[in-house]
Amino acid sequence: MKHLLSIADLSRDEIGEIMDTAISMHDVQRRQVKKLPTLRGRTIINFFFEDSTRTRSSFEIAGKWMSADTINLTGKGTSVSKGESLRDTVKTVDAMGVDMMIVRHMASGAPAQIAQWTNCSIVNAGDGMHEHPSQALLDAYTLRSKLGDLDGKHIAIVGDLTHSRVLRSNLLCLRALGANVTLVAPPTLMPSGIGSWAATDSFEVSYDLDAVLPHVDAVMMLRVQRERMSGGYFPTAREYAVRYGLTARRLALMPRHAVITHPGPMNRGLEISADAADDAQSLVLDQVSAGVAVRMSILFHLLSGEGSSA
Amino acid sequence: MKHLLSIADLSRDEIGEIMDTAISMHDVQRRQVKKLPTLRGRTIINFFFEDSTRTRSSFEIAGKWMSADTINLTGKGTSVSKGESLRDTVKTVDAMGVDMMIVRHMASGAPAQIAQWTNCSIVNAGDGMHEHPSQALLDAYTLRSKLGDLDGKHIAIVGDLTHSRVLRSNLLCLRALGANVTLVAPPTLMPSGIGSWAATDSFEVSYDLDAVLPHVDAVMMLRVQRERMSGGYFPTAREYAVRYGLTARRLALMPRHAVITHPGPMNRGLEISADAADDAQSLVLDQVSAGVAVRMSILFHLLSGEGSSA
Amino acid sequence: MKHLLSIADLSRDEIGEIMDTAISMHDVQRRQVKKLPTLRGRTIINFFFEDSTRTRSSFEIAGKWMSADTINLTGKGTSVSKGESLRDTVKTVDAMGVDMMIVRHMASGAPAQIAQWTNCSIVNAGDGMHEHPSQALLDAYTLRSKLGDLDGKHIAIVGDLTHSRVLRSNLLCLRALGANVTLVAPPTLMPSGIGSWAATDSFEVSYDLDAVLPHVDAVMMLRVQRERMSGGYFPTAREYAVRYGLTARRLALMPRHAVITHPGPMNRGLEISADAADDAQSLVLDQVSAGVAVRMSILFHLLSGEGSSA
Repeated sequence: MKHLLSIADLSRDEIGEIMDTAISMHDVQRRQVKKLPTLRGRTIINFFFEDSTRTRSSFEIAGKWMSADTINLTGKGTSVSKGESLRDTVKTVDAMGVDMMIVRHMASGAPAQIAQWTNCSIVNAGDGMHEHPSQALLDAYTLRSKLGDLDGKHIAIVGDLTHSRVLRSNLLCLRALGANVTLVAPPTLMPSGIGSWAATDSFEVSYDLDAVLPHVDAVMMLRVQRERMSGGYFPTAREYAVRYGLTARRLALMPRHAVITHPGPMNRGLEISADAADDAQSLVLDQVSAGVAVRMSILFHLLSGEGSSA
Repeated sequence: MKHLLSIADLSRDEIGEIMDTAISMHDVQRRQVKKLPTLRGRTIINFFFEDSTRTRSSFEIAGKWMSADTINLTGKGTSVSKGESLRDTVKTVDAMGVDMMIVRHMASGAPAQIAQWTNCSIVNAGDGMHEHPSQALLDAYTLRSKLGDLDGKHIAIVGDLTHSRVLRSNLLCLRALGANVTLVAPPTLMPSGIGSWAATDSFEVSYDLDAVLPHVDAVMMLRVQRERMSGGYFPTAREYAVRYGLTARRLALMPRHAVITHPGPMNRGLEISADAADDAQSLVLDQVSAGVAVRMSILFHLLSGEGSSA
Repeated sequence: MKHLLSIADLSRDEIGEIMDTAISMHDVQRRQVKKLPTLRGRTIINFFFEDSTRTRSSFEIAGKWMSADTINLTGKGTSVSKGESLRDTVKTVDAMGVDMMIVRHMASGAPAQIAQWTNCSIVNAGDGMHEHPSQALLDAYTLRSKLGDLDGKHIAIVGDLTHSRVLRSNLLCLRALGANVTLVAPPTLMPSGIGSWAATDSFEVSYDLDAVLPHVDAVMMLRVQRERMSGGYFPTAREYAVRYGLTARRLALMPRHAVITHPGPMNRGLEISADAADDAQSLVLDQVSAGVAVRMSILFHLLSGEGSSA
């Protein structure tokens, strides 16, 4: 494993290994002195062409706790804004002798393209509407730690599925782990051609959240991008909340043991009510905590293996 | 001591302890190799919702010299700009496992509110027009190192008092240390209700800087926010400088031993003339130097005590 | 050596020493664990008043690999934007106890002025149209490692010479090392008064790139600033490329052993074609790689000598 570009590149065993290592990393995170010498003298660039608090900070903390040197670069203020090609920019950063670039980019496929241009390890930290693999791994880790083995568990993924990189990575990851997935969205936010997906990938599709909730072990609420509001995807925010929001009423439809996740940032009152966000079964903050541990595990597997580049 | 939110939370002894520890930290600062292992493996977030050079850098240097991992977050480019609530944002950062957030926020009371939402230590690095406690502690440290014990010393605080968080923290700190404080400002920039303050807190109020200066041990000039210019608080910058600026003529009114402070950034020619700013009795750069030492002391007291959170 | 402000301040021997130390640093850069303890406990401020990816990152990586504490400050969001004078801003940062400021500033001479205001070491990382000495040192290092001793070598510097700080530093550096330099540019982009320069500094001037190329050991292509386009310096981008761009046709005019450099970011298709940029004789990425090693050497010579300030 040199890169983490897509969940599709990982076998079920590799996903399991990343989650298993994350358990030890989570122990480090609970210590007063959070520091491992593992990546001392290794250099990690956080290369974020889109804004991000949680993903960037989470990777930066993971790197620092493992003693790596971490450097932040953004699209703004870089040579990209002076008309340099992306290829020249990344080859330049690569030539400095860095070991890893953690890349967020608005274009689907940019991290995979960058991996072909450079010698260092590339982690996809979110590319357009394509994938966000570290999010899927931390979600699976969080769910497994509460529900046990995900094989055969019923998980609903609900919300703006058309535009979601989190959906794609989670669907691949949960399916690889044997979970039964049901996608729930308004017809306007269900990916087109989903009929043919369903045939090959064996997941269910529903437009009726109330009907799905009584049978879930977990419900994964996805963020509605505010900019969708004016896109004609649904009439009003209130209408969306009524039809697809996880409200207090819907909470009561779920089995007692079922848990709630959300990748954040949450639109309270839109896709998730305050009751649901703050419910005892909500794992929202567990996900954030697991995020650092899982990312430490990712850095470990990509950079400290025998086959890693120098 | 888990948080530093307001000087009002500190006893005279606690203020003294922070200043005493800062003396040792100041020695470290004068070494060629400025590094203590004290906070290795602890993580400090500089969470600045308002711009700042000196306060943010000063805390960042203090943290790095004590071997902490330091991470900068700003309001821009965070999830706050995506509509996430402040509560969700800080709970997210907290869940990553950080030990301290150093918070600057435009809203008075924001750091105290954040302290109730999180498990980590919170330092108020300036909140609205409320407080800026580390500034008051470094000011007191700087004054004490030049004037000795501040008990019974006469200190004038001059300038835009209505809008100043530096005033509030300094007034509390100097009073706790037994100094006699006189507030000097144009009537439009004197906090309303100051009459009742004076009755209970035993400080003096004056509108005549010339009358006050001959009796001071120290004069603390506060910055006039440029945006006040258009607010009708005083006729013109020149008028303000003539009436309340520390000019060469006024320097001569002060006792020889009396010293000058300013928290910076200075408006030279407005509240302080170049003669005064660069006078041998000006402690402006001593304040900056002390700032790092006092902040190292604050980090030490909040994070390395027995009762600190992990 | 306390500061690096201009190549003019360095003797030929000092330039040689910096390049020689860079060879060892380059070895460190090729290791898996890139870390020297040399500058532990020393604090370096990257003070960039203009945007930069490669220079800032390169210095930041160099500092981190030598175990220094590195802190980034920009012009935006600093007290300069609140009306503070540059002098007060830099004296403030200096008073915190930093060891070095690496300064990029839009005003020619700003770093030299700052050196007079502070106690710490100042590195000029590009000032207006004046100098960019670390770029010239890394260019010389890169050329020497391919061509051997530069004494007597023929080097053409081509492009927007009027506005180029890279030109000035390179001309001084290459002349100090004994190279024969030919400047090539359209008349509108040739520095005025170049006639008198030529008399004293013994370099050649040409307006005909085709005539120069057959005799070079190296051709140094400089970036055309996009903002020149509308300045009337040349009719169109296409016209510039045809007359002064390093095209596939011109590549064939160069001797086989001759090499190509460009400080980046490149305008592919303008001053340099894709063929030339990606040619086997192009040293563009070697320059970037050498940049970190040469900057480590600069930090070493300025900060770890006996005479360095604490």
